[in-house]
Amino acid sequence: MVKVTVWNEFLHEKEHEEVKAVYPDGIHNALAEGIRSEGIEVQTATLEEPEHGLTEEKLNNTDVLIWWGHMGHDRVDDAIVERVHQRVMDGMGLIVLHSGHFSKIFKKLMGTGCDLKWREAGEKERIWTVNPAHPIAAGIPEYVTIDHEEMYGEHFDIPAPDELVFVSWFEGGEVFRSGCTFFRGQGKIFYFRPGHETHPTYYHPQVLQIIQNGVKWAAPSQAGKPVRGNHQPLEPIKGQA
Amino acid sequence: MVKVTVWNEFLHEKEHEEVKAVYPDGIHNALAEGIRSEGIEVQTATLEEPEHGLTEEKLNNTDVLIWWGHMGHDRVDDAIVERVHQRVMDGMGLIVLHSGHFSKIFKKLMGTGCDLKWREAGEKERIWTVNPAHPIAAGIPEYVTIDHEEMYGEHFDIPAPDELVFVSWFEGGEVFRSGCTFFRGQGKIFYFRPGHETHPTYYHPQVLQIIQNGVKWAAPSQAGKPVRGNHQPLEPIKGQA
Amino acid sequence: MVKVTVWNEFLHEKEHEEVKAVYPDGIHNALAEGIRSEGIEVQTATLEEPEHGLTEEKLNNTDVLIWWGHMGHDRVDDAIVERVHQRVMDGMGLIVLHSGHFSKIFKKLMGTGCDLKWREAGEKERIWTVNPAHPIAAGIPEYVTIDHEEMYGEHFDIPAPDELVFVSWFEGGEVFRSGCTFFRGQGKIFYFRPGHETHPTYYHPQVLQIIQNGVKWAAPSQAGKPVRGNHQPLEPIKGQA
Amino acid sequence: MVKVTVWNEFLHEKEHEEVKAVYPDGIHNALAEGIRSEGIEVQTATLEEPEHGLTEEKLNNTDVLIWWGHMGHDRVDDAIVERVHQRVMDGMGLIVLHSGHFSKIFKKLMGTGCDLKWREAGEKERIWTVNPAHPIAAGIPEYVTIDHEEMYGEHFDIPAPDELVFVSWFEGGEVFRSGCTFFRGQGKIFYFRPGHETHPTYYHPQVLQIIQNGVKWAAPSQAGKPVRGNHQPLEPIKGQA
Repeated sequence: MVKVTVWNEFLHEKEHEEVKAVYPDGIHNALAEGIRSEGIEVQTATLEEPEHGLTEEKLNNTDVLIWWGHMGHDRVDDAIVERVHQRVMDGMGLIVLHSGHFSKIFKKLMGTGCDLKWREAGEKERIWTVNPAHPIAAGIPEYVTIDHEEMYGEHFDIPAPDELVFVSWFEGGEVFRSGCTFFRGQGKIFYFRPGHETHPTYYHPQVLQIIQNGVKWAAPSQAGKPVRGNHQPLEPIKGQA
Repeated sequence: MVKVTVWNEFLHEKEHEEVKAVYPDGIHNALAEGIRSEGIEVQTATLEEPEHGLTEEKLNNTDVLIWWGHMGHDRVDDAIVERVHQRVMDGMGLIVLHSGHFSKIFKKLMGTGCDLKWREAGEKERIWTVNPAHPIAAGIPEYVTIDHEEMYGEHFDIPAPDELVFVSWFEGGEVFRSGCTFFRGQGKIFYFRPGHETHPTYYHPQVLQIIQNGVKWAAPSQAGKPVRGNHQPLEPIKGQA
Repeated sequence: MVKVTVWNEFLHEKEHEEVKAVYPDGIHNALAEGIRSEGIEVQTATLEEPEHGLTEEKLNNTDVLIWWGHMGHDRVDDAIVERVHQRVMDGMGLIVLHSGHFSKIFKKLMGTGCDLKWREAGEKERIWTVNPAHPIAAGIPEYVTIDHEEMYGEHFDIPAPDELVFVSWFEGGEVFRSGCTFFRGQGKIFYFRPGHETHPTYYHPQVLQIIQNGVKWAAPSQAGKPVRGNHQPLEPIKGQA
Repeated sequence: MVKVTVWNEFLHEKEHEEVKAVYPDGIHNALAEGIRSEGIEVQTATLEEPEHGLTEEKLNNTDVLIWWGHMGHDRVDDAIVERVHQRVMDGMGLIVLHSGHFSKIFKKLMGTGCDLKWREAGEKERIWTVNPAHPIAAGIPEYVTIDHEEMYGEHFDIPAPDELVFVSWFEGGEVFRSGCTFFRGQGKIFYFRPGHETHPTYYHPQVLQIIQNGVKWAAPSQAGKPVRGNHQPLEPIKGQA
């Protein structure tokens, strides 16, 4: 059983009627509903809860954290960012969605500016699979169409992903590396592009399938924890005075 | 249930008493015994069987093929190499062990010479985990010791692996990229270094654990099969006479 | 001074009036003319010359080989393919253009099927830079427009490139990894997509700039040649009977 | 002409007689002396200068910054770290040496803990070339021996390097990814392991050759600067109300 926590800043849905109409219970609950399944157990957390809902206890019981944020990036407390970062270093999976590209935690993990092009024109997106052998592409056809989405375009200022799984085409002339994986510390990170708050993208069955696949891929591998610091030689040191 | 076929040329064990003493039923049966477990079903195949034991039917019922060869590389029929290659392109996993680095199938998949340094001195090897987040490292400590092994050293003439999981240290002064993954076509390939025929390496519990992890990682992802060839435009083509 | 040989099968230009109109002296001469510059010296070779113009002497005097082929892939002699492959292993750079994706040499170096989608509709292509730090992108803006080109689409069945430099957008709805680098043996390989024979793509200044950059990047590094085979220990072997 | 600035915290050399004996004018001056050559122009900067010697003007006139730090990591001002980070994002090359793995700038660029094993036993190190085609390996034999160095061992907690060029073997039983490149923003980063302050490593001709090669590789590519933010469609947006 993989334990997932879906974190959402949950601000747009309270403030903008247009967004509330699409996600009346918040993006986090739509996502939780959409990915809950055999082998995946889901809870949620939001910005305005104490400690943003990300207490030590909750994170210690989270195998994979999903992150959606946008207008409230600056309101996320640095101490919580540090805590999430440490958990990723210790093996927790992290899935960063859409505008989460500018979240403190994603920028800290990437080490780059994470900027990109964008346009809100509700245009057509095609998400092409470029690594069909990857487990995150399991069951996904050669492309997924989203009829109306916000455009994100290159250059996306991230490190070259360890694995590039999806590349998006946009009607207005841009491309975007939409599905990117990163190994960091003992954790696995999956960035997945779609999900503007005014579009019903998180009800799209293939988008949900990809996120479920991402959850399974990012779950901790239970590897032996590396030992660091000062060490005795494993072999006798020869040739010294 | 992952269906594994262990292929072994099975020549040394018949011809050399020293090898027969270590693997009386052949390397393939030692490996089959060692990795058979809940969720992993294993059969074997050898060089001197008709079609080297790799009939179309058998390969079509194989999720992951494990390959051990050495003195008989040249005796493997090109048509069978082609058949295995096609199955990897279609999604079958492939685990190439030790001297399999010089097999026809591995060289064809890599596109390079696949040469390396070697020395038969029964020296100590330490296999260090350099990507502890990788599923193939699950449950493996920071290093695994093999007391007596053949040395393999750099430069190992392969493409840079898509993921480097293990690096070996040898007593005599060399290093080697010992655990390497490659995505090719829709298939996943894992090269794992240890296993000289005169040493009981395939009874080593952590070596077997790594191969089991490799089997789970390399099993097909059931991704949608890409469509190729000549295509109609998805969007109306504009701007043409 | 980097010594370049441009190889072209030079068949379309003799057989098809439409192509001859665009490249009256052949694609090879257009390319040679377009990239010859300070520090880059260029000669040509074609399929119907003896040994396809790729004698041992000529290859030994080539730092970077550029390859354009299409309808004549099968007419390239296996022995010459082997010779070019060996030179790449020994450090010669190789730039494969457009339909060269299906050449024997490229398939041999990649180890995969190298298939892709295609459509001849003379549609618009935008080549986006996704790695602006890469030397092959030097002086290239964030995207290059080609007004009329053949479409190539994913899934492009190659190994994940060591470095992904460009991704193309096509009017009809596809994306393509258009600028890909691969380290193989001691050689460096650059695959670059554009250049259908019916379009004047190899007169496009930015396309030529990218190929020139590719030549400089792919030129041999003069690294020390690795030594392989059986080796004596660098350190005394301890712990043996 | 590539303009290099060698930055050194310059503390050990003032405080420890043992270090002063090896580097009487400081590590920065030994390095500057060692890499200055045709095409490479070198200046220095140290921690205790105003703004650590890294004024805006100086950084704007630096193509490649070399960083050596150890006991004074915490004394580096966050504002200067931010300034260096921004310059790397804008295309300045960065070479981080030895104990610089724990510098603020390297940790910020990597996004991980950057921890490792270590042992001060003056033991033998062999630096093996694993990517002989890489320009940083130009002119370097298959391995470089350093007779006495501090050991650094895996797991080294960094992102998988974009290119792995060197792997070290240590007498006492460890391996280490010693030569690692990273593309970040428009900048190129090279981490190179050797150089403990008590050993004369920065007088070693092959160590200096590798750093010179790194300088040439990391120098800015003069790529077009990507444009980001809100964008107009390149193509007419169709299908909207």
